[in-house]
Amino acid sequence: MIELKRPPLPRVDERIGLRYGAGGRAMRALIEGVFAQGFTAAPASADVVGLAAFDDGAAFRVGDEWLVLTTDSHVVQPIEFPGGDIGRLSVCGTVNDLAMMGATEVLGLTCAVVIEEGFARATLERLHRSMLEACAEAGTTIVTGDTKVMGRGELDGVVFNTTGLGRTRHLVRDSGLRAGDVIVVTGTIGDHGLAVMATRHQLALDGDLRSDVAPLNGLVRAAMAAGGEGLAAMKDPTRGGLASSLHEMAAKAGVGIVLHEAALPVRDEVRAAAELLGLDPLHIANEGKAVMGVRAEAADRVLAALRAHPLGRDAAVVGRAVADHAGAVVLDTGIGKRLVAEPEGEPLPRIC
Amino acid sequence: MIELKRPPLPRVDERIGLRYGAGGRAMRALIEGVFAQGFTAAPASADVVGLAAFDDGAAFRVGDEWLVLTTDSHVVQPIEFPGGDIGRLSVCGTVNDLAMMGATEVLGLTCAVVIEEGFARATLERLHRSMLEACAEAGTTIVTGDTKVMGRGELDGVVFNTTGLGRTRHLVRDSGLRAGDVIVVTGTIGDHGLAVMATRHQLALDGDLRSDVAPLNGLVRAAMAAGGEGLAAMKDPTRGGLASSLHEMAAKAGVGIVLHEAALPVRDEVRAAAELLGLDPLHIANEGKAVMGVRAEAADRVLAALRAHPLGRDAAVVGRAVADHAGAVVLDTGIGKRLVAEPEGEPLPRIC
Repeated sequence: MIELKRPPLPRVDERIGLRYGAGGRAMRALIEGVFAQGFTAAPASADVVGLAAFDDGAAFRVGDEWLVLTTDSHVVQPIEFPGGDIGRLSVCGTVNDLAMMGATEVLGLTCAVVIEEGFARATLERLHRSMLEACAEAGTTIVTGDTKVMGRGELDGVVFNTTGLGRTRHLVRDSGLRAGDVIVVTGTIGDHGLAVMATRHQLALDGDLRSDVAPLNGLVRAAMAAGGEGLAAMKDPTRGGLASSLHEMAAKAGVGIVLHEAALPVRDEVRAAAELLGLDPLHIANEGKAVMGVRAEAADRVLAALRAHPLGRDAAVVGRAVADHAGAVVLDTGIGKRLVAEPEGEPLPRIC
Repeated sequence: MIELKRPPLPRVDERIGLRYGAGGRAMRALIEGVFAQGFTAAPASADVVGLAAFDDGAAFRVGDEWLVLTTDSHVVQPIEFPGGDIGRLSVCGTVNDLAMMGATEVLGLTCAVVIEEGFARATLERLHRSMLEACAEAGTTIVTGDTKVMGRGELDGVVFNTTGLGRTRHLVRDSGLRAGDVIVVTGTIGDHGLAVMATRHQLALDGDLRSDVAPLNGLVRAAMAAGGEGLAAMKDPTRGGLASSLHEMAAKAGVGIVLHEAALPVRDEVRAAAELLGLDPLHIANEGKAVMGVRAEAADRVLAALRAHPLGRDAAVVGRAVADHAGAVVLDTGIGKRLVAEPEGEPLPRIC
């Protein structure tokens, strides 16, 4: 018997613990219980997607287009890791949040940097080059910024905030699933989080663990062109991993999701590292992957378009939205079914 | 004899010191020498104001309007001070940067918060209420956000980033001065910086030092309606104070600026505190003031509109743009003239 209701959120503790920034239930409690209070009171409008939607960003209708706005601060530690660094992560994280709402055309990014006194100029120069490269890959640029310095010991290194402005004629929401939709992931899961953890803890692991951090707007553009309105819902499974994203999508749409464990693309080295650490790749952050809900009739076209793109070669159908057990995510292991709980958050802090 | 050239910027030190975030020459060196490299290479366009402009934000022409985008991270310490707090400051700082480019209509703000583990929920709730109030004053709202938590000792308290999206039909630039323009400030100078300093250092000072932090979009709307195209240039004198803003405006427009010391509106308690601390109010940050360059024929109308608004009662003509000594700011003390140097930065760190 599978539980049907999303459990109520706990009250926020008197002191903010690390899990409140980890992308799962605790963070939802802080945002819904504190930060969003009052800001969601504005009258709902067909022309604005605001804070009450808790989507990857906000959207404003202007003429026959949507402007999409999204923000992320990045605190990843270490700031450089296999496959990327905090500069690349900042650009990609923001480009991807725009892309998840359909805004694959990025008008520009802002970049606000907070630096600890004594930080090395040479490191800033490396991070800056990395941002330049990521912007070139995404076909965008940084249009304005801000610089602050905090005293020695007042900040551990650097914090980067990037905010992006994009536009689209086809706004995609994370709430668009319907029963019968096919769930597609655009590639292997767990790569980013495990690469960062392994680096931070200097784990001696076999294989080549690398972050997947990449700008997805080109890939998403191809999927949207192939799928049209059949691309019905999208989210990037960052903090809290695929499990967290699917919970959001299921709860917002009032559908259940059945995942097929055998279909989940996971690299061998990621699987091995996760087992060693006692972690589930479903809960681990990705920074170059999307999860899509696609109407069944468009699924083949979208999958073919994804696989034809260098960032989507491992794209796979991993499950289906169902009318039963609304709001729940069920894992079909092949020998039975179990409920996937909504994660409290990412297992380790400062993963992005 | 007055020096005519803006001195070249120094090379950035190998280690980033506090002055690199203080809004003056050092920060310009870091931004122009590191962060902006490569991002200013995009072809100049009449339809985009990008990073190369080093204005208060970026702008994109869409149809017959301009979209304006601006970002600021706030690290003020203490986070609560007479007249405001980091929440109010974040909303006002971003609303004001939009207003300085003419975008008095704010489509929405993003808010990204980074919190130190152990931070009190009750304080977050106070800061949140303060943001709600400031948004109501500015006629806008927060439309999307981000939450991160860093470990205990990894961050001193909280950092707030706000990014704003606004629009306008009349884009105002900080480069629009012409010789003959009148320089107007919308009220007294130095209030914010001295209030924060006095609180941080628990100075026992006479009088009621309070930050002027306030959203200026309503005031600017009134000035623009009165002045039309005659409102030719605008900037908010935050870090580095009025001196820093006027240097930017003079250098970009290739004009000189002559300031009349006796005309500068400075509260008695601000003047007294500044004297005690050996500081010049010209160098101190404001968070609820604008400096405007106005064509002479529109000056009376703009001044009257400003003074009719509660936030502009102390507005004053403080100087004039001149064709001589381009890029220099000259203070006419009544008994002689002296050059106002471009400040290295705000005298104290974490003022905003």
